[in-house]
Amino acid sequence: MFKKILIANRGEIALRIIRTCKEMGIKTVAVYSTADKESLHVKFADEAVCIGPPASALSYLSMPNLIAAAEITNADAIHPGYGFLSENAEFSRICQENGIKFIGASPEMINQMGDKATAKATMIKAGVPCIPGSVGLLDSVEQGKKIAAKIKYPVILKATAGGGGRGMRIIHGDDEFQKAWDDARTESKAAFGNDGMYLEKYVVEPHHIEVQLVGDQFGHVCHLSERDCSIQRRHQKLVEEAPSPFMTDELREKMGAAAIAGAAAIGYEGVGTIEFLVDKNRDFYFMEMNTRIQVEHPVTEEIINYDLIKEQIKVAAGIPISGKNYYPKMHAMECRINAEDPRNNFRPAPGRITTLHIPGGHGVRVDTHVYAGYQIPPNYDSMIAKLITVAQTREECIVKMKRALSEFVVEGVKTTIPFHLALMDNEQFKEGHFTTAFLETFDFSTV
Amino acid sequence: MFKKILIANRGEIALRIIRTCKEMGIKTVAVYSTADKESLHVKFADEAVCIGPPASALSYLSMPNLIAAAEITNADAIHPGYGFLSENAEFSRICQENGIKFIGASPEMINQMGDKATAKATMIKAGVPCIPGSVGLLDSVEQGKKIAAKIKYPVILKATAGGGGRGMRIIHGDDEFQKAWDDARTESKAAFGNDGMYLEKYVVEPHHIEVQLVGDQFGHVCHLSERDCSIQRRHQKLVEEAPSPFMTDELREKMGAAAIAGAAAIGYEGVGTIEFLVDKNRDFYFMEMNTRIQVEHPVTEEIINYDLIKEQIKVAAGIPISGKNYYPKMHAMECRINAEDPRNNFRPAPGRITTLHIPGGHGVRVDTHVYAGYQIPPNYDSMIAKLITVAQTREECIVKMKRALSEFVVEGVKTTIPFHLALMDNEQFKEGHFTTAFLETFDFSTV
Repeated sequence: MFKKILIANRGEIALRIIRTCKEMGIKTVAVYSTADKESLHVKFADEAVCIGPPASALSYLSMPNLIAAAEITNADAIHPGYGFLSENAEFSRICQENGIKFIGASPEMINQMGDKATAKATMIKAGVPCIPGSVGLLDSVEQGKKIAAKIKYPVILKATAGGGGRGMRIIHGDDEFQKAWDDARTESKAAFGNDGMYLEKYVVEPHHIEVQLVGDQFGHVCHLSERDCSIQRRHQKLVEEAPSPFMTDELREKMGAAAIAGAAAIGYEGVGTIEFLVDKNRDFYFMEMNTRIQVEHPVTEEIINYDLIKEQIKVAAGIPISGKNYYPKMHAMECRINAEDPRNNFRPAPGRITTLHIPGGHGVRVDTHVYAGYQIPPNYDSMIAKLITVAQTREECIVKMKRALSEFVVEGVKTTIPFHLALMDNEQFKEGHFTTAFLETFDFSTV
Repeated sequence: MFKKILIANRGEIALRIIRTCKEMGIKTVAVYSTADKESLHVKFADEAVCIGPPASALSYLSMPNLIAAAEITNADAIHPGYGFLSENAEFSRICQENGIKFIGASPEMINQMGDKATAKATMIKAGVPCIPGSVGLLDSVEQGKKIAAKIKYPVILKATAGGGGRGMRIIHGDDEFQKAWDDARTESKAAFGNDGMYLEKYVVEPHHIEVQLVGDQFGHVCHLSERDCSIQRRHQKLVEEAPSPFMTDELREKMGAAAIAGAAAIGYEGVGTIEFLVDKNRDFYFMEMNTRIQVEHPVTEEIINYDLIKEQIKVAAGIPISGKNYYPKMHAMECRINAEDPRNNFRPAPGRITTLHIPGGHGVRVDTHVYAGYQIPPNYDSMIAKLITVAQTREECIVKMKRALSEFVVEGVKTTIPFHLALMDNEQFKEGHFTTAFLETFDFSTV
């Protein structure tokens, strides 16, 4: 087992990793930018090294600084958390070259899953359902119409170089094709200097459901059931839960098997997640694989009583997993408490937390790095806490969340707590009827 | 179901009850003495009524003030918590007479279990093992020696009016009897004006193990397994856990059946606990029954995923229980965080909490009513928080407790945290080898 782990991250996830290391008897090294020197992850680690100024590029993303910090503290492994360098193939490789175990995916796996076309090709080969569409780029409108006839409308035309919604057109029938093709190409050419297009079936109002996986160095991969992350605002998850209210036992088996097949196809080691889009007919399609721990991992931990960070560290140290899949025994939900103003378009609201009361009691878990007096730096993401509740049923889980939110007191900065309180009172949400489109029609005046 | 519950208590247990009421959709009324007006139970209840000055006799123990508060707020039930009036037969009766449901035992049950001699007679009749000894008072030394020959030495001579260890003598053989008899009677006469003596077998270094029970209005009684509360200092519990490390499946069945028989014999309704002494041969003896919720109830909640306060309220409202017993699925432990100085004979240390950081993460529960800036009143008991950890095994539960204790920061007052940290490092404790005598030989210099 590792003797000392450097945590190349900040905030709640750094503290989360320190907690498990302490429980495993592993020493920890915190790294911090000058903006984070008063953060709890610095106080609770065994050692702490300043790695640079507030700008992430010069601190949390600085590979030389991180490797130097690991070397001077004699850390034998680095845990990257999520974000920052957690899915950076070069960093994974540099750690390897320096004889430091990267607690995450190998450079090869990161590359394979990081490139969307390669990932999709790998998944198709492994028999994982992917969104049907053109193989590679589209030559002409005629070819597009032929494919559309096969995969059925609506379809979506996407710029191969695209992003942020530009060079993208949803098409509902043959008559719309020519105009969409012309417009999208023009837009893409202007935006990216490239008018290459590909076509995919457009999944209408999908559910975002992801399968948690663990693989070891001996070829075993198991799944830990799913999480539903459909409550998103502009692709930012706000609430996650497990199990998914849209799930059936049959679908769980199918999605679990597909996810395992996909991960096994690349010999996946470590914890990872395959994200799927699921349509109203419960047909599901591979979206992407995250080769790291995710923000929302606690909901999985709570429904199966399992420490995912511990398992991740054990697997990295070469310890085999049991190989069996895990099925939900409880219902858990996570609300992301962000320093943002939900009544003002979720505008980030950094500042000093003057008063703090964290909820507690039966079935309530809080993962946070903040305290009364804490100054939230404006340099990083706005999440200040994750509030997780767990209960026998989804209904109980929601009332517990409502109760916990009602006693969560943060003064000095605006937070997303009022949004979550309004959501917990929304009938449609309470009934479990929602897709990724839910917040588009949500009545924000109830917040 | 009740519409509004008045909570006739303060501190963490008042907040604990408010939490469950919120989750059940029941309105709450907090009561408070002037010393407690800044307490969280006041802030989080739907309504709050000041019931008098700091002295308990004039506020939390004042039945007229409590009944008046319930009447002006239209509360249809009163939850007494633990301590204060929770086992007061008169208060239970007065509630009844005023048409307010007392969420606890009936006056008859409280009387039956409150008087030690009656309780013991009831339990013997129900077949619950009790400590063998004289039936009623002892007439003479000769009679005492005869009984001792039957129940075997060591025995203990106890003043019928006694308490606090006075008028009590442990006797190891016939030759010690006469002197013990003379000394104990003289002491008892001087202390209580009564020299009546009774004799019991002396249980050497017993384990304190208690069985949690729930009974409904339809004659069902079930047990929720046991808690081990042997870690005591001068009969004050400091750490409780479930299951007991001294337990066997066979003993649990026997103790559970005995506890159910005892409670069923009096037609017990509500949550209650039968405390047993268990000797090294795993013979167990009835000690007393508590007809209320106990401080240490969360360890039971955590090992079986069960809200005891919710069940208590449901049973009081006439809802039947399932009737099945509950067996441990996890291991849980509770450390009482008291504002006391463990390096100075646990002297109470009230004062203002200047800085507070409450631990969190997977498997950690905190029940507390305090916050940064909170002034601990000197008028009540010194407990400021209960820290509970839960894990698959006792060993993991202890490492998690150690981790959580290490990040529990309370500045401004002394607390029992250093004691608990030392205990979690004690080899004998870690191995699960301890009785109620454990702290007598504990090396407090390790604190």
